[in-house]
Amino acid sequence: MSGLSLTAFTEKYKKLVEQELKNSVSQLAAPEIILDSMHYSLSAGGKRIRPLLTFATMSAFGKDPETGLLPAAAIEMIHTYSLIHDDLPSMDDDDLRRGIPTNHKVYGEAIAILAGDALLTYAFQLVTAMKFDAETKIKVLEIIAKAAGAEGMVGGQVGDIEGEGKNLSKEDLEYIHVHKTGKMLEASILIGAVLAGADKEQMELLTSFAYHLGLAFQIRDDILDVEGDEELIGKPLGSDVHNHKSTYPALLTMDGAKKELTYHISAAKEKLNQLSLKTGLLEEMTDLVGNRNS
Amino acid sequence: MSGLSLTAFTEKYKKLVEQELKNSVSQLAAPEIILDSMHYSLSAGGKRIRPLLTFATMSAFGKDPETGLLPAAAIEMIHTYSLIHDDLPSMDDDDLRRGIPTNHKVYGEAIAILAGDALLTYAFQLVTAMKFDAETKIKVLEIIAKAAGAEGMVGGQVGDIEGEGKNLSKEDLEYIHVHKTGKMLEASILIGAVLAGADKEQMELLTSFAYHLGLAFQIRDDILDVEGDEELIGKPLGSDVHNHKSTYPALLTMDGAKKELTYHISAAKEKLNQLSLKTGLLEEMTDLVGNRNS
Repeated sequence: MSGLSLTAFTEKYKKLVEQELKNSVSQLAAPEIILDSMHYSLSAGGKRIRPLLTFATMSAFGKDPETGLLPAAAIEMIHTYSLIHDDLPSMDDDDLRRGIPTNHKVYGEAIAILAGDALLTYAFQLVTAMKFDAETKIKVLEIIAKAAGAEGMVGGQVGDIEGEGKNLSKEDLEYIHVHKTGKMLEASILIGAVLAGADKEQMELLTSFAYHLGLAFQIRDDILDVEGDEELIGKPLGSDVHNHKSTYPALLTMDGAKKELTYHISAAKEKLNQLSLKTGLLEEMTDLVGNRNS
Repeated sequence: MSGLSLTAFTEKYKKLVEQELKNSVSQLAAPEIILDSMHYSLSAGGKRIRPLLTFATMSAFGKDPETGLLPAAAIEMIHTYSLIHDDLPSMDDDDLRRGIPTNHKVYGEAIAILAGDALLTYAFQLVTAMKFDAETKIKVLEIIAKAAGAEGMVGGQVGDIEGEGKNLSKEDLEYIHVHKTGKMLEASILIGAVLAGADKEQMELLTSFAYHLGLAFQIRDDILDVEGDEELIGKPLGSDVHNHKSTYPALLTMDGAKKELTYHISAAKEKLNQLSLKTGLLEEMTDLVGNRNS
């Protein structure tokens, strides 16, 4: 347990991971334009929720979060690559991300695609370089690869694209979100647990926690897309409707979506309670997802 | 040493790796369209030179090549992803690859990009699953990630795109080819060596062998683009000129390019001779690259 408040914890570790993202890319010997493009999207802000989940999970086990810096940065690189590719004209065709032009708007499509490819590849390289025994590294790599690939995030993005303009069932919508967003959130938590030496039961409880947190996270995102503050979310409201995406409010009504959010937040917190660890930071992070004004 | 002729060796291990590529993707639980798209490009043929180099290197050390099946398949997946992304409209904008429509022509750009992403990610997952100790797996993963990323293949592709329409120097052209093609050929050889327990000196000789083989491979490709058989290479002749690419024949004259090819073939074979291993298969493969009619 770090003993820090969530605010102090977030400030400290957000800074650390952002520094690591910058340093690690700066070390690469590669054409300047690809490094610029990688830096551009890595430094475009964001809450860094994935690395923070890794750190907070390690902290719950009493393990120094800083020892998880490389895999946490790797997870953020994979998240960043996925945003670059998702924003491309052939995918969501977004011009803005976090209030600034998307990568392909600045560097062109070819470099944007390659920057994404390079970030994904470098993420795996970073994990091989962390200071843990080889078996732990392999466990972390397995978790990340599975979460990022066709059975995880990429599968979810395929479902998302295929589902555009269709009236999806709740099951279809849940498939998309569990895979597109949920699997990498889950991986962020599970790699923290692996690094901290979690046992099988703890891994299962954290997997279940991650499932509810991931869905809550996405439902909140859908709600904010209707009711949020444009400046805060960095893109125009109503982009889901504009992109012909199915959403929880459209499927369940706004009231139903809010009830669903409350349910997943409370289920997530129940799993944390069953862990008998110092999960204070994870609980507060869960509450933040549940608070639609944060 | 397998004791097989190169023809029998190629036939046997090409079949094995193609079966593995098919089986491993079939095991994935993911939307059908992404699996179809991955299968489409994986099964589109090609000489499978990279996995064959892994197998032939293992064979030179007297190690059973079949134990390298998963990482060899992983290398071929990464090669396949790179072809899918390189063919995209924003990159080389190719409609044909190995005589059949490119991935995005069949599945659309979005799915093609995602199939590439999924293949790259799955490649790393496959290596974590191979039956070697964790330290060997990490060594193999390091080699592959470095060869595939910004400092390797992606960097070369960036150089290639940035160099279009420019008159490149021989050094610039060599940077592109050493990175775009050479690094993954080198990785194919080095992972075979790692799996066979090569020592430092052997790794260095093989690195040098790979350097010359990689350049020879690319020079031959440039020559074939002018003088080759359209049916054999599966795309129209003159595509380099059409795509405003710098080539060895353009830079050195056709005669100069052929001399350069001969030089690299002979330098590659010299390195093999210094290894004191049963490098017969690697030598024959090198000769095949040198033979411009094969």
